[in-house]
Amino acid sequence: MGKLIGIGVGPGDKELITLKALKAIENADVIIAPTAMENGVSIALETVKEYIKPNTEVMIKHFPMGKDDREEKAYEAYKTVEELVETKKTVVFLTIGDPYVYSTYIHMLTHMEKKGFDVETIPGITSFCAAASIIDRPLVIGNEPLLIIPANRVKDIRDEKYVVIMKLYKEEENVISFLEEKGFDYVYVSRAGREGQRVLKNKDEILKLRDYMSLIIASR
Amino acid sequence: MGKLIGIGVGPGDKELITLKALKAIENADVIIAPTAMENGVSIALETVKEYIKPNTEVMIKHFPMGKDDREEKAYEAYKTVEELVETKKTVVFLTIGDPYVYSTYIHMLTHMEKKGFDVETIPGITSFCAAASIIDRPLVIGNEPLLIIPANRVKDIRDEKYVVIMKLYKEEENVISFLEEKGFDYVYVSRAGREGQRVLKNKDEILKLRDYMSLIIASR
Repeated sequence: MGKLIGIGVGPGDKELITLKALKAIENADVIIAPTAMENGVSIALETVKEYIKPNTEVMIKHFPMGKDDREEKAYEAYKTVEELVETKKTVVFLTIGDPYVYSTYIHMLTHMEKKGFDVETIPGITSFCAAASIIDRPLVIGNEPLLIIPANRVKDIRDEKYVVIMKLYKEEENVISFLEEKGFDYVYVSRAGREGQRVLKNKDEILKLRDYMSLIIASR
Repeated sequence: MGKLIGIGVGPGDKELITLKALKAIENADVIIAPTAMENGVSIALETVKEYIKPNTEVMIKHFPMGKDDREEKAYEAYKTVEELVETKKTVVFLTIGDPYVYSTYIHMLTHMEKKGFDVETIPGITSFCAAASIIDRPLVIGNEPLLIIPANRVKDIRDEKYVVIMKLYKEEENVISFLEEKGFDYVYVSRAGREGQRVLKNKDEILKLRDYMSLIIASR
């Protein structure tokens, strides 16, 4: 029997991958890379492509984000992995960021666990840790909590002093209005550690840019 | 003028360091490693010691956690760094986990920024991401927030479904009672990815172990 290794490749900077993940990529028989768009580029694959040995098979799988057919696509990916693992292959499944923070890996893994397959997971640098280092700003200090929250849940912020807003796309205006009203100081970071990286503090500039791969680090 | 590079070495597993951090360690003139106890072992240094080149100077600095003299010690460390940077040294400051999540790095950096020194920060794998991969359990999925909270603030948890409890030491009993009362399912992980790693789900076993380096991942 083979094995599935899920790895977090980090935020998209090829040097922000761990030694353990690198080793897994180098030793893989098959690498599966997710893409959010049909026939789209896989950012996870782009991040690690230079580490992949020439004889390694690479498969790109479509994982729609938050769409109705997500479960179905996860099951399709699982069936591919199942077949490979049963033929004694070591399969590496790439995820951007960390595999256990809002990732597509989780949906596929549920099927793997039901079948009792051998699974290993290697953590990755989250987008918010990468962004904090880029702007040299603490995510959280002292004895305070840190709330990581999707943009469309921003109104659930209560008395937290340190927050990270994820999944910002199309919610930028609501989020920034809320943060300003509640006395937060905030920084918007898009494509942290990748080509086209932007750091913005001005509301108008943020609303003009509206990048899909972005987050806000805020505190008050 | 030299430079300060703050790096997250990850949770303590030497393979969970990033390529970027490894490169910084290899190119450092001086490495400064914090230790929580006077004359104690630096976990950060233990994690990366085999990557340090023989001609690199290594200094261990005492950073008491949450003690009254923390600010004073941070300032002492800063003065050391200042002197080195002014003599054109590249100084690497190690932190366990990520430099911007509850770390001692932040206190020292404030002084650096005031003086306008050149600073670079390299993110690290957080203890909670490492623990999630070890137990193969999501930190957060779907459209839910993730609350990272120090143990003595556990009563601030409201309707969050996904939480991580940090700084558990001496608060284990309060935290577990609260989590059980609020219908959480939880896993305790100590020394994630390091020698002596333990994963516990039983309250009595957790209270018996009471490890200083531990956290709880919980959901409901």
